[in-house]
Amino acid sequence: MIVGILGGGQLGRMLAMAGYPLGLRFRTLDPSAGAPAGHLTEQYVDDFTDTEALSRFAVGLDLVTYEFENVPVDSAKFLQRRVAVYPPPGALETSQDRLVEKSFFQRLGIPTPPFVRVDSWNDLENAIASIGLPALLKTRRFGYDGKGQYVLETEEDAVLAWQTLGGVPLIFENKIGFEREVSILAARSTTGETRCYPLIENHHEKGMLRLSLAPAPNLSEALQKPAEAYATRVLDELHYAGILAIEFFVLDGKLYANEMAPRVHNSGHWTIEGAQTSQFENHLRAISGMPLGTTDMKGCAAMVNIIGTLPDRRAVLSLPDAHLHLYGKAPRPNRKLGHITLSCASVEARHNQLGQLQKLIEFQLS
Amino acid sequence: MIVGILGGGQLGRMLAMAGYPLGLRFRTLDPSAGAPAGHLTEQYVDDFTDTEALSRFAVGLDLVTYEFENVPVDSAKFLQRRVAVYPPPGALETSQDRLVEKSFFQRLGIPTPPFVRVDSWNDLENAIASIGLPALLKTRRFGYDGKGQYVLETEEDAVLAWQTLGGVPLIFENKIGFEREVSILAARSTTGETRCYPLIENHHEKGMLRLSLAPAPNLSEALQKPAEAYATRVLDELHYAGILAIEFFVLDGKLYANEMAPRVHNSGHWTIEGAQTSQFENHLRAISGMPLGTTDMKGCAAMVNIIGTLPDRRAVLSLPDAHLHLYGKAPRPNRKLGHITLSCASVEARHNQLGQLQKLIEFQLS
Repeated sequence: MIVGILGGGQLGRMLAMAGYPLGLRFRTLDPSAGAPAGHLTEQYVDDFTDTEALSRFAVGLDLVTYEFENVPVDSAKFLQRRVAVYPPPGALETSQDRLVEKSFFQRLGIPTPPFVRVDSWNDLENAIASIGLPALLKTRRFGYDGKGQYVLETEEDAVLAWQTLGGVPLIFENKIGFEREVSILAARSTTGETRCYPLIENHHEKGMLRLSLAPAPNLSEALQKPAEAYATRVLDELHYAGILAIEFFVLDGKLYANEMAPRVHNSGHWTIEGAQTSQFENHLRAISGMPLGTTDMKGCAAMVNIIGTLPDRRAVLSLPDAHLHLYGKAPRPNRKLGHITLSCASVEARHNQLGQLQKLIEFQLS
Repeated sequence: MIVGILGGGQLGRMLAMAGYPLGLRFRTLDPSAGAPAGHLTEQYVDDFTDTEALSRFAVGLDLVTYEFENVPVDSAKFLQRRVAVYPPPGALETSQDRLVEKSFFQRLGIPTPPFVRVDSWNDLENAIASIGLPALLKTRRFGYDGKGQYVLETEEDAVLAWQTLGGVPLIFENKIGFEREVSILAARSTTGETRCYPLIENHHEKGMLRLSLAPAPNLSEALQKPAEAYATRVLDELHYAGILAIEFFVLDGKLYANEMAPRVHNSGHWTIEGAQTSQFENHLRAISGMPLGTTDMKGCAAMVNIIGTLPDRRAVLSLPDAHLHLYGKAPRPNRKLGHITLSCASVEARHNQLGQLQKLIEFQLS
């Protein structure tokens, strides 16, 4: 079976590595010739919107998936007329627009922070009046890693944000004073089988994921259960197949959905060593209709992203529980170059080695 | 760093999968265009003895290793004049000739079954007289998976074996009535750092490895310690870098070396999920001078080879602790097509799931 992957980044690369042992083969499509997945897959260097290129790409494929959520929906639908595409393009459509996404959560009874659509300065004034400040003003589309969004503390901030963002469809969201951010990874197979990983606690810096702890510290059934229920509702509603990630804020012990990603997710990279089945393998099992693997953890884990510059490789590899994952990318500011997973027998060992990792990579341990 | 691998079989394939996350890239050399490692590495299709091809292969490589022990020593030495080759070709030379290998063990004080060189019918008669029957008569070179060897129970067997094998250099070995077969995997880095995995118990069928149990049941320090001492002696003597496997017979609680393989080894495939660092990753860390990873086990493990025909993939993947590893090879009698690792929290769980695996793959659980 040959699987096509739209996007040749690190997620595509890790999907391929998880899939070869299952007997799958891979073809990736990416406009950049040096994309990380190209080192170990057949790579087509073409634009995602070039239908002739998409037609060529589709020849001989049994299945198509994608590794980033800004894949043009039209391209996914174009391919779908030739070959099965999972997750379904409808999931892409829902997740690509923050307003559509939050309205979707709301419709399914999944709590979100208060939000409202903003298409004009007048809308923005009304939003401030009705929902209040502090708040977030975000573009509805094409935001990632904190890009395309502003924090509004004052009315003045709103004026400044409007100068930059005004003119494209926006969403105004209440900035709830959450205690922490968590995410759930859930897999649903084409046969409807569903499995969830334990909730993960995520720490962001400058809008980018920096550190994930798995399971989330002090994880209780009171958090895990609703998270699984919400994820399952989303999966079923979208007739989903593959891995889906949902990010939540936690406030007073309750979950508020922030956003979802219809793909394998950075907060799930720890599963390669830390779970019985990795998110990458379960994504492939799910889209190809194979039985899902158990999502049980092996001990506990932490994942630290390598951003911008590479740490001393020898020092990282000297940490007994550390697993290095480099993506084969050249260093550049704010670029995700790899990650390190700590797969530990105990929370104490994890804490200790996170402390040691901090001497090699600058990150906050709050 | 680009690593060249002589041989494009499943071992090369698994080496590459372990090495990409370390930031390595791979080029494989194999005479067969469809070789398993070719799916995910840059592949050169050439003969191992073609020096022009070897020269082309070496261009741009930082390091060369090999994934089978019948690499022509001259080819390894030819490459060594252009680029570092690990494990050292001297290890190849020693392991390619059973007589040289067993003499080497003997010289290092590592017990072996009694053996003697046989170059003539007269030698064979003398061997039977001095060492006795039952015995094994083997070609000194190019034997693998039970090929090129005969069991001699009677003098008549000796006559028949001589008719087939006579004419090439042979070795006559006492067939000791061992209780079980075990193997040790040891890593030594170019810096001299050494680590050993726990002893593994191996079960062969028709001369091929069928089942490995890790750790070996009832493993005591009284077995593990001498195994580690012997392995370390071999590694140091050969100025070794990489993974080395040594197979032993166990008789009356003592180890007798049978043979060694200067490469990653089938009896170590369980380390992918079952150890903190896999044999493949440690081989690459060792030959590139990186710190070795810990060889600690995660729970316990078993490995079952898939030979000749593929089992029902859905059924295998339904076993909660099973990890499927297919090599991308077409089924053919007596061909290793893949393996299944059970990575379990307890010996009981392993026993239970081995029983379930037996319904999918025919193998003996003694």
